[in-house]
Amino acid sequence: MCATFWFCQVRGGIIKIVSRKAEMQALATEMRLQGKTLSLVPTMGFLHEGHLSLMNRAKAASDVLITSIFVNPTQFGPNEDFGAYPRNLEQDVLSCQSAGVDILFTPEAADLYGSGYQTFISLESLPNHLCGLSRPGHFRGVATVVAKLFNITRPHIAIFGQKDYQQVLVIRRMVQDLDMDVEIIASPTIREPDGLAKSSRNTYLAPNERPAALSLSQSLLQSQRMIDAGVTDADTIVKAACVLIQSFDNTVIDYVSICHPESLEPLETIDGPALMALAVRVGKTRLIDNRILKPAFAG
Amino acid sequence: MCATFWFCQVRGGIIKIVSRKAEMQALATEMRLQGKTLSLVPTMGFLHEGHLSLMNRAKAASDVLITSIFVNPTQFGPNEDFGAYPRNLEQDVLSCQSAGVDILFTPEAADLYGSGYQTFISLESLPNHLCGLSRPGHFRGVATVVAKLFNITRPHIAIFGQKDYQQVLVIRRMVQDLDMDVEIIASPTIREPDGLAKSSRNTYLAPNERPAALSLSQSLLQSQRMIDAGVTDADTIVKAACVLIQSFDNTVIDYVSICHPESLEPLETIDGPALMALAVRVGKTRLIDNRILKPAFAG
Repeated sequence: MCATFWFCQVRGGIIKIVSRKAEMQALATEMRLQGKTLSLVPTMGFLHEGHLSLMNRAKAASDVLITSIFVNPTQFGPNEDFGAYPRNLEQDVLSCQSAGVDILFTPEAADLYGSGYQTFISLESLPNHLCGLSRPGHFRGVATVVAKLFNITRPHIAIFGQKDYQQVLVIRRMVQDLDMDVEIIASPTIREPDGLAKSSRNTYLAPNERPAALSLSQSLLQSQRMIDAGVTDADTIVKAACVLIQSFDNTVIDYVSICHPESLEPLETIDGPALMALAVRVGKTRLIDNRILKPAFAG
Repeated sequence: MCATFWFCQVRGGIIKIVSRKAEMQALATEMRLQGKTLSLVPTMGFLHEGHLSLMNRAKAASDVLITSIFVNPTQFGPNEDFGAYPRNLEQDVLSCQSAGVDILFTPEAADLYGSGYQTFISLESLPNHLCGLSRPGHFRGVATVVAKLFNITRPHIAIFGQKDYQQVLVIRRMVQDLDMDVEIIASPTIREPDGLAKSSRNTYLAPNERPAALSLSQSLLQSQRMIDAGVTDADTIVKAACVLIQSFDNTVIDYVSICHPESLEPLETIDGPALMALAVRVGKTRLIDNRILKPAFAG
C-alpha cells in the first residue's frame, strides 16, 4: 500500500491501519495529550480466540485499543519457523475489526529495525529456564521488540496471554527494571473444547497428530489430580507426565518442569502454588502449555 | 530526609528536589499532560561549568529543566573509582539553583535498582572501540541507566556533553534503535583557560600533574596543526601525539585514536572530518578528551 495508514471499513465498523512507526508514535503521543487511555495487544498475527480474549480485556480497560501484528525475526532462532510462521493479514483485519480494535499497527521489519541496528535488551536470570534454554536469544528478541512497541504505541496497559507464561514474566520484569510506565496484564489461556491450548502454531498439526498434541493439557490435568491424591514430590509428577506424553510415538519432549511461579527455579516439593510448564514437539510442531498446580487442601 | 521530596530555597529561587523514582515519574507524567516541554540533564554530580553549560542549553529549550544526580554503580568496573568519585550534593544544589534547574532528581541506588534487578541494554558495535575496550560493561551500564532516567523523567530533550563523545553516540543509537521519543543534543566541551577539558575527575589531579594533564588537549591541537600543514596519514599524527604525551613521565596512554566520527572505526587517512579521541592516565587519574579533526582546505 502506498499510504502509510488507511481506513478499512468492514462490517460497518472502522479500524485505522498504520504501518509506519513514526506515524504510530505521533498518533499515540497525540492521544495521550488528549488524556486518552491506550491499551496494546501485541501479536504475531494469525489471530485466534486467544488473541480475541486479550483484545476484549484491553477494550474494556481503555479508551483506545491498539493491536500490533508483527512476526518478529529477532525472536526466532536460525532453525526455527520464522519463514513458515502462518500469516493472514486480510483475515486478521476482519478479526480486529470485530473485536473493536481502534488502531492496527502493522510495521515492516525494515522500518522497525533500521540500518545499523545494534541495541538489545537482555535479562540475566529469567531466560535461563524453560523455553529460554532451548531457544537461545528468544527472550532477548522478545524483550527488545516489546520495548520498541511500547515506545512506539505508548500504551498505559498491555495485555499478554498466560499461555506464554515465561514471556509474561520476562516482560513484567523488564517493565519493572527499566521503569517503563506500562501496566502488564496476563490473561488466561483459551483452549479448544478438547483442551488443546489455542495457538497460531496449531495450524501446523496434521489431524492424526491431534491425540499426541492433547497429551500436553492432559498431562497438566493428570499432575493436578496426582497432587489432589496426595503426591507432593515434583519428580514423581514430572515422570508420570513424561510417560503420558511419550505414550504417543510422534512426540519429543523439550522440557517438562515444575518450578517456582516467579523465579522459575525448579521445585522439589509442591507445598505452595507451583508452575508446571512443558514444551513438546509433536511431529514438526513445537507446542507449549502450562498450569499453576495448587497443593492439595489449599482451600 | 524523611519526605521524599522537598523544596530548597536558596538565593531567592526555588528548586524542587525529588528522590523517589515513583514520585518523579508521576510528576513528569503530570507535566507532560499539562503540555509542558521537559528537558533532562543527567549528571553524576560534582557539577562544574561543563554541566552548567548543558543546563543553560536545556533551560532555553524547555519549560521545565530536570537535572539528575546519580553516581551509577553499574557503569564502573570493579577496579574503577566508584567509591572515590567526588560528591558534594550541598554545593550541587546551589549550582542547580543558580542555573535555573526546576527539578533536581537525586535517586538512591536501592530505589533505582530494586531487588532481583536483571535487565540490561547493550549495543553490539559502538562499545567495541575507544573507552569501551578498556572499560568492559561501561556502556551497558550507561545505556541502561539513561533508559531508566528517560522512563522516569520522561524528557522531550536530553543534553549530554561532547566531552564524552562515545557516550553521546551510544545514547543516540539506543534512542534511535529502541524508538525512544527523546531528542538528544550534544553540547561542546567546556575547557579551563589552559585548555584542560572540564571534568569532575580533574579534582583528583595534584598541582604537579597539571602539565601532564594538559598534554591531552595539546596533542589534539598539535594534530590539527599537522593536518593544516599537509599531513593526512592518521598513524603519523597518532604517533606524534603519543610522543608529546609520553614526554611527561607520569602519563600512561590508554588509547589515542583517529576514527570515523559516527562508526568509530579506525581511519588510515584523513580525507574528511575525523574524530580524534584519547584516554590517558595521569598519575591515578584517567582523563579523556576528543576533537573533530578537519582536513586541510576543508573550507
